[in-house]
Amino acid sequence: MAKSKLFGKDLICSQEWSEEELIQVLELAEEMKENRFNYQPLLKDRTFFMFFYNPSVRTRQSFECALTELGGHAQFLEPKTMRLKTATTAGETVEDAAKVMSRYGCGIGIRILEDMVSRYGEGDELIREYARWAEVPVISMAHDKFHPCQGLADLMGLRTHLGKELQGKKLLLTWGHGALARSWSSVQETLLISSRFGMEVTLAYPAGYDLDPQIIEQTKENCRAKGSRFEITHSPFDGYRGADVVYSRNWVSPDAYRGGRFHKGEEMKRAMRYKEWICDPEKMKLTANALFIHPMPVDRGHEVTDEVASGSRSLIYEIAENRLHVQKAILALIASDLW
Amino acid sequence: MAKSKLFGKDLICSQEWSEEELIQVLELAEEMKENRFNYQPLLKDRTFFMFFYNPSVRTRQSFECALTELGGHAQFLEPKTMRLKTATTAGETVEDAAKVMSRYGCGIGIRILEDMVSRYGEGDELIREYARWAEVPVISMAHDKFHPCQGLADLMGLRTHLGKELQGKKLLLTWGHGALARSWSSVQETLLISSRFGMEVTLAYPAGYDLDPQIIEQTKENCRAKGSRFEITHSPFDGYRGADVVYSRNWVSPDAYRGGRFHKGEEMKRAMRYKEWICDPEKMKLTANALFIHPMPVDRGHEVTDEVASGSRSLIYEIAENRLHVQKAILALIASDLW
Amino acid sequence: MAKSKLFGKDLICSQEWSEEELIQVLELAEEMKENRFNYQPLLKDRTFFMFFYNPSVRTRQSFECALTELGGHAQFLEPKTMRLKTATTAGETVEDAAKVMSRYGCGIGIRILEDMVSRYGEGDELIREYARWAEVPVISMAHDKFHPCQGLADLMGLRTHLGKELQGKKLLLTWGHGALARSWSSVQETLLISSRFGMEVTLAYPAGYDLDPQIIEQTKENCRAKGSRFEITHSPFDGYRGADVVYSRNWVSPDAYRGGRFHKGEEMKRAMRYKEWICDPEKMKLTANALFIHPMPVDRGHEVTDEVASGSRSLIYEIAENRLHVQKAILALIASDLW
Repeated sequence: MAKSKLFGKDLICSQEWSEEELIQVLELAEEMKENRFNYQPLLKDRTFFMFFYNPSVRTRQSFECALTELGGHAQFLEPKTMRLKTATTAGETVEDAAKVMSRYGCGIGIRILEDMVSRYGEGDELIREYARWAEVPVISMAHDKFHPCQGLADLMGLRTHLGKELQGKKLLLTWGHGALARSWSSVQETLLISSRFGMEVTLAYPAGYDLDPQIIEQTKENCRAKGSRFEITHSPFDGYRGADVVYSRNWVSPDAYRGGRFHKGEEMKRAMRYKEWICDPEKMKLTANALFIHPMPVDRGHEVTDEVASGSRSLIYEIAENRLHVQKAILALIASDLW
Repeated sequence: MAKSKLFGKDLICSQEWSEEELIQVLELAEEMKENRFNYQPLLKDRTFFMFFYNPSVRTRQSFECALTELGGHAQFLEPKTMRLKTATTAGETVEDAAKVMSRYGCGIGIRILEDMVSRYGEGDELIREYARWAEVPVISMAHDKFHPCQGLADLMGLRTHLGKELQGKKLLLTWGHGALARSWSSVQETLLISSRFGMEVTLAYPAGYDLDPQIIEQTKENCRAKGSRFEITHSPFDGYRGADVVYSRNWVSPDAYRGGRFHKGEEMKRAMRYKEWICDPEKMKLTANALFIHPMPVDRGHEVTDEVASGSRSLIYEIAENRLHVQKAILALIASDLW
Repeated sequence: MAKSKLFGKDLICSQEWSEEELIQVLELAEEMKENRFNYQPLLKDRTFFMFFYNPSVRTRQSFECALTELGGHAQFLEPKTMRLKTATTAGETVEDAAKVMSRYGCGIGIRILEDMVSRYGEGDELIREYARWAEVPVISMAHDKFHPCQGLADLMGLRTHLGKELQGKKLLLTWGHGALARSWSSVQETLLISSRFGMEVTLAYPAGYDLDPQIIEQTKENCRAKGSRFEITHSPFDGYRGADVVYSRNWVSPDAYRGGRFHKGEEMKRAMRYKEWICDPEKMKLTANALFIHPMPVDRGHEVTDEVASGSRSLIYEIAENRLHVQKAILALIASDLW
C-alpha cells in the first residue's frame, strides 16, 4: 500500500496545482479511459462525500460513477437538511462537520453555485473553510468561482484532438444568449487552464458581461508567461476568425449579485435580448475548422444551434465523458492509499 | 467477456419481446432465486441510472438491491432537479441527457406515472424518446401505460404455483375500490403477458372504468393466437367462478385525464362509492381455490380484505420478491458484457 | 458460512441486550477500529434499508459508510414518499412494508424523532411495529426514546480512556441551554448504558426538564444492581465536583408534546433563558480532570464553550468516529450470515 505524491491535496482551482501535477492527472485519466474497469481497487470500500448545496445532474452522475468504478461509494448529501451554524441560527460549525466527515470518508466534494450564496466569492470561502478543517482532501464539484474538473475535462478533450502541445492553438471563449442565468465557474476555469497550457485566448461578450477582474488578470499573466496572446472583444463575430476551438456559453452579468441576493429572473430576461450571440454554422465558417466545446447542459437554440452542437466537430459528449475519467484520476491521486 | 443475445435491448412493454426472450428472463430469474448471491460479477462496478419522475418504494428498493447483488450500483435520481427543455422553458434536451448518461452507465430505468403527465401516453412517449437517443438499454420502472417488470414477476409467481404450462388457466383481473387513484400500468401489463402465455382472462370492472382500448385489443389478439377466451364483465361477482388466479386492484377511470391534468382527488372520491368491489373470502369461495396476486402496495380493506391478502393462497410477498429476481435477470441479460 | 449468536436480533435500546452481548459488540468494534478495512466480506452485496423519517447527517453518513466498509450497500429512504396507511388515509400497512423489505434486505434501520410524532413514545411504537413484522433485524438509528448506537459509541470512548472497568467512575449528564430543541433519545440511552456498566451517575437539569420517569426508574435500578449512586440535581454547578466524565447537552421539556404536536419554537425560546447552563472551563475545573463527551452536533456557545469542546479532554470526534465502528460491529453480528 502506497500513496501518490498528490495524496491529501485539495482541488479548488486548477491554477493552484502545478502544470506537472495537472499533466499527471490528465495522463492517468487517459489511461483510465483506455482501460476503464481496471482501477477498482484504488478506493476499495472507501466513502466519498458529495455535498450538493446546489442540485446537479452530470456532476452527481459522474462523481458517483467514478467512486463506483474505483471500488468505493459516493454518498449523495444535500446540506439543506444539515443544521449548520450561521450568523443568526444555532447549529453545527463547519469545523465540526468537516472533522467528523474526515473520520468516515476519504474525501469531500462540494458544489455551491451563485444562487445559493449572497455575494460572489462566498461559495469559494465556504469550500476553503471546509478545506481548512478537513483532514481529507476537499474537491470543488463547481462553485461560484471555479470548476476544476470541468477545466480538466476540456483540456483532456483538446489534447485528444489537437495534440498534447496546445501552445499557440487559438481558443474563442464566447458568451451566448439564453435563459439559464449561468455561473462564471466553468468559463473562468477554462480561461485559466487553457492559458496555462499556452493557448491563445479570445474572450468575447456583450458590454456589461465582465467576468471576475482577478481571473482576467490571472489569465493575462498565464498568457504572458507562455508568450501567447489574450484579447477581449465585444463583437459577436470577430473572435471566430482563425479559431481552433470555440466555446460558446451563457453567463450572468456582475449585476446579478445585488443587495445580498442573486437576481436570476432579471438576468434571464436581460440575456435573451442579445440574439446575435449564438454560435451558428455561419460564424463557424470563419474559424480554422474549429472544434466546438461546451460544459453542458447545452441550451440549444440560444447558446449554439443544433447543427453545431450535434455536428462532426462537436466534442460535447466526449468532454462530458472525460468528466468521469478526470475525476477518477483526481480521486485516485488525492484520496487513495492503495497504490 | 461476452454478452447475451439480449444485450442492448430496451424493455418498455413485455409485448415487444418474444415469448422465447421472456422465458429466458424467467428461467434466469428462477436460477437467481435459487442461488441468490452468485451473480455478483455480472455488473461489477457498473452504474445503472434510476430516474424517478414519480417516487416509489418497492421499485426503488428492488432495483437498487438488484444492482448491489450484481456487483454494481444504482444511482437514485429525481429529475425534478434536472433542467430539461420543455415547450416553454430552456433546458437540456432528452437527446443530450440520454447520450451523456450512455457514456457513464450501463442502462437507464425510468418511472413516470399518470400524475406527472398531462395526458395518458405522454409518459410512454418520454421513455421512447430516451430509448431513441440512449446508447444503453432503457427499461421501464412503471410508466403510464406499462410495467414490464411487474408483469414478469407476476408470471414468475404463477409458473411456480401453477406450473410452467399456463395455457387454459383462468385469471380474473378485477377492479377494486379504494382511495389511491392507481395507474393502469400494472394491470395492462398483466393483461398482455398472461394472455401471451395462454391464460383465459376475465376482466371485471364497474361501467366507466375502461382501460386503454388498444391494450384490450392486443389482449384479445393474444388470446385468439393461443385459442383461449377473453371476457369483460361489469359484475363484481361473476368473474370469480372457476378462477385459478384472482388479481384485485384499483385503477382510475379514463376521465382522470381532463384538460391537461390528472384529477386525482375526484378519482379517489368516485372510486370509494363502489364498496361491493372488494375481493373477500365470500367471493373467493366461488373460485377453483384461486391464488391471490397483487402488485402492491395493497390497499387492505378496499381492494381486498385482510383474510385474503394475508391468507394461505396469497402470493403478494412472493411476487414482490420476484421483482428483485426478474430485474436482476433482465439487467444481466440486457446490460452485462461480463458473461 | 455461519452466523453469530446475535443473528437476527433487533436493537431498539441497549437495555434490552445483556451486558455480555453489549461487550461482544464493543470488543468487535474495537477490533474493527484497529483493522478497519478487513471486514468487507461480512455483508458482501447485501442491502440494508435506512428509513429516515427525520433527516440526519452523522447517522446517515456513518451507517452508509458502515455498509460500504462491510461490502454491502445502504439504501437511503425517506418515508415521506411512501404511501403508508394511517388512521385517516389509505396506504400500505407496516406489516406489508416490513415483510417485503425482509425479502430484499438484510436489515432495516429506522430514525424517527420527536418532531415527527404526535406524542412521546409513538416513534418507539412504530419501530416495534416494524420489528414485529420484519423477518430481518430492525435497528434504531435514533428515535424519540432511545439511541442505542450512540450509547454504545459513548461507552466505547469511555472504555478507551478510562479502562474497561467503569465501575465507580463518575458521569455528570447535564442539560445545556440552546436553540435546537433536542431529543431525549441520546441522553436516555447514555443514562441506561452507563449505569448498566457500573458508573455513578449525576443527572443535572433546570426544574421543568424532567426526562421519561420510566427511564429514570430503570437507571436507578441499574445503579442499585451495581451498587453505585444515582443523583438528580437542579444546580448547574454541583454535579461537576469530582466528575470523571461530563456530558452537556440540550433537551426539550416534557411540555414539548402538547395537543398532538411538538412545540419546537416555544421550546427553543424557553431553553435560551437558562444561560448559566453551559459547560465551560470554570465548571470543568471542579471535576477530576473530566473527559468531555457529546453526541454531536454540538451547539457551541450554548451547550458548551469552544474551549471545552475543542479542548484536549474532549472526545467528541473520537466518539463520532466510534459510531461507525459500533454500527459495523452490530450489523456484522445481527445481519451477516457470512462469518
